[in-house]
Amino acid sequence: MSKQSIKIGLFGFGTVGQGVYTVLGQTKNAHAEIRRICVRDINKPRETVVPHELLTADADDIFNDPDINLIVELVDNARASYDIVTRALRMGIPVVSGNKAMIARHLPELIELQQKYDTALLYDASSCGSIPVIRNLEEYYDNDLLLEVKGILNGSTNYILSRVFDHGENYDAALHRAQQLGFAESDPSFDIDGYDALFKLIIITVHALGRFVPAEKVFTVGISNIHEADIQYAREKGSKIKLVAQVAKVDDSHFTMFVMPELVDKSKYIYSVDDEYNGVVIRGEYYDRQFMFGKGAGGYPTASSILSDIMARLHDYRYEYKKMAYVDRPEYTTDIEVRVYIRYSTTDVPGRLNFSHIHELHLTEQSNCIIGDIPLSRLMEQRDIFDNDDVFIAHIPTFYIDRDN
Amino acid sequence: MSKQSIKIGLFGFGTVGQGVYTVLGQTKNAHAEIRRICVRDINKPRETVVPHELLTADADDIFNDPDINLIVELVDNARASYDIVTRALRMGIPVVSGNKAMIARHLPELIELQQKYDTALLYDASSCGSIPVIRNLEEYYDNDLLLEVKGILNGSTNYILSRVFDHGENYDAALHRAQQLGFAESDPSFDIDGYDALFKLIIITVHALGRFVPAEKVFTVGISNIHEADIQYAREKGSKIKLVAQVAKVDDSHFTMFVMPELVDKSKYIYSVDDEYNGVVIRGEYYDRQFMFGKGAGGYPTASSILSDIMARLHDYRYEYKKMAYVDRPEYTTDIEVRVYIRYSTTDVPGRLNFSHIHELHLTEQSNCIIGDIPLSRLMEQRDIFDNDDVFIAHIPTFYIDRDN
Repeated sequence: MSKQSIKIGLFGFGTVGQGVYTVLGQTKNAHAEIRRICVRDINKPRETVVPHELLTADADDIFNDPDINLIVELVDNARASYDIVTRALRMGIPVVSGNKAMIARHLPELIELQQKYDTALLYDASSCGSIPVIRNLEEYYDNDLLLEVKGILNGSTNYILSRVFDHGENYDAALHRAQQLGFAESDPSFDIDGYDALFKLIIITVHALGRFVPAEKVFTVGISNIHEADIQYAREKGSKIKLVAQVAKVDDSHFTMFVMPELVDKSKYIYSVDDEYNGVVIRGEYYDRQFMFGKGAGGYPTASSILSDIMARLHDYRYEYKKMAYVDRPEYTTDIEVRVYIRYSTTDVPGRLNFSHIHELHLTEQSNCIIGDIPLSRLMEQRDIFDNDDVFIAHIPTFYIDRDN
Repeated sequence: MSKQSIKIGLFGFGTVGQGVYTVLGQTKNAHAEIRRICVRDINKPRETVVPHELLTADADDIFNDPDINLIVELVDNARASYDIVTRALRMGIPVVSGNKAMIARHLPELIELQQKYDTALLYDASSCGSIPVIRNLEEYYDNDLLLEVKGILNGSTNYILSRVFDHGENYDAALHRAQQLGFAESDPSFDIDGYDALFKLIIITVHALGRFVPAEKVFTVGISNIHEADIQYAREKGSKIKLVAQVAKVDDSHFTMFVMPELVDKSKYIYSVDDEYNGVVIRGEYYDRQFMFGKGAGGYPTASSILSDIMARLHDYRYEYKKMAYVDRPEYTTDIEVRVYIRYSTTDVPGRLNFSHIHELHLTEQSNCIIGDIPLSRLMEQRDIFDNDDVFIAHIPTFYIDRDN
């Protein structure tokens, strides 16, 4: 496609789709135009006005248009997203997608399809909105030095926690406000239970270490059970609670990954990542820590990231997934000890979890709290305990302290 | 060169060269090896021990070796660097270089040579050590949305200012310590007078806006005239003084750029970029601000950046300089008003500078201080005034406040 212009078939015209339309209209040098937009209901009133003939409800109007040489898929439904993306790849049409849930579930198949049909799927917008994490892991941190990628990958939970921590708002009010501002997904549990961050982490891990780990194998807990007592505890320690996703090498041949709230102290870069922002720390041998920070939620930041993927296609860019071919790729493990804070009342947490070591135990009439060390694998086995709404867990980072820092 | 292995001829074996040698030895998947190292004196004792037959004092041993398919140039001398790089490009051999002074001076010619001889020159290590600024500007922020790139690009002045501001050290002691730690260049004036930051800014501007601006056209003042009174003034305002380089669009068809100390207040991302770290803020329409932060000085961080450039050559990566072909590239201007703090004693600053507007004037027996607005072009005309060691200038950012923020 080099040097030619890009003719886009767009699927989905929600916040991000409309953002892409507006942003493309503003860039004189994009050499890209939207030829057709496929939506469910062409007559639905929309904030962004487009020529009526651009809209269609029939996907075939895009797939059968021989002029269209790029499909941009921004539908809010993982099944429909999968159908569109795989159909396009099978036809040899490159695709830009922002659907992290779909991509995180089907990445091995999507990689295979790209290779089989010699075409490209780009999805930098799927992780951390406007921050170019995937592209940098794929191209720039393309070597064996990488030790860890860790960060705040979900803008809406971070917004909620910022409102709670820095503005003294209660949790429900903060959630409601996040939804009003368009930061939270239509199903907020996707954000709040940590799945959005998990899907991004799975995609990041493929490009960081060349390993695909299915969602069900990753310990994932969100923020919905946070209580005033947890906020109080964090404040007393001079910390904030953030929802943190991380993948880290634990030795030369193993890595681990998980998503959970973390007690983040002031000395950490991510401590000051507030509101709807995302922040990612990339740590490696020799270069130590790199920190990238930017808007992680909202239509325009995501649209600008989609634009970067669109323009990359002008130069036939595709992910090479080089690290999947590396020798001595590290193996995934949950066989590591993590230190956690757990607050609970009626659930028998000490009985169920069998800590390796308990550092603190506070029992009061209102609630109890344990600080202890436990294998991540045991947390995985007993993960249903965290569905009980009297139980809240937060990670206390320790396990890399002896590696450097 | 795709899929083949890279055989490197290395010029220069100082801190960074030795770092590259060590880092390459640690990466199993680099598919790159150093075939020959050209140094001035092969018998000089070095910290990193290498097989004696790797070393040569004769550049021809590299240029005449048909196996060598990449030259990595890390010599500490701009003239020698120019000769090596241009000779290699003319032979069609791709080059990785970290010499910002040489690149910033000769970039138009170096771009022409790359095109004429169909080969590549990569130099991401030349700007901000381990932070992938060039690559991201070239590939990811490859569109018309970019408004500004601003940051702390020089690790050694930042280290010195951090020692002075946060540790109450005096300036000379801090400079001495920076040199001991290997953060300062062999000629410290290169850092301290702002030239290192300027050269990086010139390179960044080519990849940010597609425009090459020669060094002599850019207003550049360093930190060597900073006094206790300036530090005191900044502290009273709750600010720090940092050496900041910036390029910014001032309207749709113009941009400006300059390097000078800045009074940075707490609300800014770069406020917390301390010690030898670099921090760069990339601002654009729609995505607002992105912040990248990492180690900007030192052998290993720079070496890891060189490694990224080396590995990019495995996939034939080269800069396309796309933005130089953009329609409606903005024009460089110094015809903008800037607000500055100037402290002076004997020099007739008000007489020479003819401020457009003076906001504050403090006259004391020890020293005087003006806060005023002045065209950048007038500062340029009178730039020799800042060679007087009783005059210190610091920028007070105002001119983009009305654009967003």
